[in-house]
Amino acid sequence: MRGTVIHGPGDIRLETLDDPKILHPTDAVIRTALTCVCGSDLWPYRGVDTVAGPSPMGHEYVGFVEEVGSEVTGLRPGQFVVGSFATSDNTCPNCRNGFTSNCLHREFMSTCQADYVRIPNAQGTLVATEEVPGEEYWPGLLAVSDVMGTGWWAADAAEVKPGSTAVVVGDGAVGLCGVIAAKAMGAERIIAMSRHESRQRLAREFGATDLVTERGEEGVARIRQLTDGIGADSVLECVGTAEAMQQALRSARPGGNVGFVGVPHGVAVDGQELFFSHVGLRGGPAPVRRYLPDLIDHVLTRRIDPGKVFDLTLPLEQVAEGYRAMDERRAVKALLKP
Amino acid sequence: MRGTVIHGPGDIRLETLDDPKILHPTDAVIRTALTCVCGSDLWPYRGVDTVAGPSPMGHEYVGFVEEVGSEVTGLRPGQFVVGSFATSDNTCPNCRNGFTSNCLHREFMSTCQADYVRIPNAQGTLVATEEVPGEEYWPGLLAVSDVMGTGWWAADAAEVKPGSTAVVVGDGAVGLCGVIAAKAMGAERIIAMSRHESRQRLAREFGATDLVTERGEEGVARIRQLTDGIGADSVLECVGTAEAMQQALRSARPGGNVGFVGVPHGVAVDGQELFFSHVGLRGGPAPVRRYLPDLIDHVLTRRIDPGKVFDLTLPLEQVAEGYRAMDERRAVKALLKP
Repeated sequence: MRGTVIHGPGDIRLETLDDPKILHPTDAVIRTALTCVCGSDLWPYRGVDTVAGPSPMGHEYVGFVEEVGSEVTGLRPGQFVVGSFATSDNTCPNCRNGFTSNCLHREFMSTCQADYVRIPNAQGTLVATEEVPGEEYWPGLLAVSDVMGTGWWAADAAEVKPGSTAVVVGDGAVGLCGVIAAKAMGAERIIAMSRHESRQRLAREFGATDLVTERGEEGVARIRQLTDGIGADSVLECVGTAEAMQQALRSARPGGNVGFVGVPHGVAVDGQELFFSHVGLRGGPAPVRRYLPDLIDHVLTRRIDPGKVFDLTLPLEQVAEGYRAMDERRAVKALLKP
Repeated sequence: MRGTVIHGPGDIRLETLDDPKILHPTDAVIRTALTCVCGSDLWPYRGVDTVAGPSPMGHEYVGFVEEVGSEVTGLRPGQFVVGSFATSDNTCPNCRNGFTSNCLHREFMSTCQADYVRIPNAQGTLVATEEVPGEEYWPGLLAVSDVMGTGWWAADAAEVKPGSTAVVVGDGAVGLCGVIAAKAMGAERIIAMSRHESRQRLAREFGATDLVTERGEEGVARIRQLTDGIGADSVLECVGTAEAMQQALRSARPGGNVGFVGVPHGVAVDGQELFFSHVGLRGGPAPVRRYLPDLIDHVLTRRIDPGKVFDLTLPLEQVAEGYRAMDERRAVKALLKP
């Protein structure tokens, strides 16, 4: 089969790899219907995360069950399935507490920009749709497996409530999905921090009521101006840098909440500043599996349309162009068709 | 009148000061019924916080209304009142959101180890009891004005729920009140981290089900052992040091909550560690005013007895001995009688 491999910063290749096989009785193998490039794939692409040697890439996928291991009783070949970038058995204490992406048997997916993918913990990880959905739903369902699930988690961790004010820091695909989530959870005012016209347009379309282009102290001042001088109830931090975290913490009102979902790079939170702010802080890899049934339903009933974050569609063989376009911010998110 | 003044590390004196007067129409002056020494008073006493010059001390008090300003309509001379270390108008947006200790007109009290005290924002800050309570209730009500309110906030911020497991880091008066709060909120298992026999005894009496004497990695390992290998639902960080914060964060289960109420000294939280832990973190100066009516009721109906944290009672003139005894850990908390 064909699979994506990173060889070093900027060096993405589609190569011929061995077809994945069932290795454990809890595995499944799926034929990829759609996959895509994630903002976090750019960390190694840009050399921010070290690339030790040639490594497969990709952790977002929807597909068709090809084969299941002997202990996978809830899935059968031919079913259309949505998964998560983090596998989970869905039975361990952490899963029962709702933190499926902290499953005691978790494995992070990393081979999904390929024709076929082995899914560990398949029974707990994959959710099959009742029937094979029309192709027009596939991008939305693909988004649910990561960016939409992560945007939802950002809003959930930031405790967005009906009638509240939410700020979204970051206008990448996750931030835009954060706008969708805040809207779906009933936020009355949604302030998107974005400087890019095409992303601003999408943010508006998804439900942003205000756009803030300022950053840093000016950005914080502008948020205060828009929020009765005290800051927002909920802030979704969808970037992962120290600047974005500071922006988020200072945009929240006393006693507000920050949900942070960008993998932190060089972020340290000052204890005393956090203390005097009264702000609640929670983040982490999104527990996508917890949300899957609900979010799949949201997509299939057209209540949300996160597939719109894909503004570039490429055949899998052009995966390298997908990375380039995102790196150069020519695309929000690149969809790949095997 | 007599009032306590710190002149430098270890130098506490009771001096003759001017009687406080109404300075603003929103002030009240109270005659102190009881006051006490706080763990946080030890920061300047030990030279950890700088003492710029002679400064009055004390922020815990119950007393009798002596005089009220022209805008204070809800209080009258002779009433017995309980307050908070942070004053609040109880009407601003932050107060309405429940974060009274982040009131836009907040002033931190700092002159309470004295015969009389001026209370800014008196109407919003002070809660009068229906009648003057018996003297046996005064220590409990005094505790409510700070340590018990803070322990309650720690448990609230750590989202203690019925049936849950709570860990309390710190066996000072606040930690011990945290045990009281966790018990009152229905925690089934309360693990107190304490090495001091007299404090262990009090923790047990307040509801601790387990005691852990280990610290650091050993302490974390012991907590995991007691909590099905995953950690506690809620952790109350009642110290304020980097070690205590690390202890707290690593004692919480994935997706658990840490409430931190000790003023952080040299604490920086690593973003990536917090991220992968999924732990929710919230702290700050306790919004005591929010809890006052409920906690006063808890004390007067004997559902809780936080007055027991005072294990040393001194006349106000021996205030210096109160500081010494707490500094040397001969006392958990020193009660002062004017």
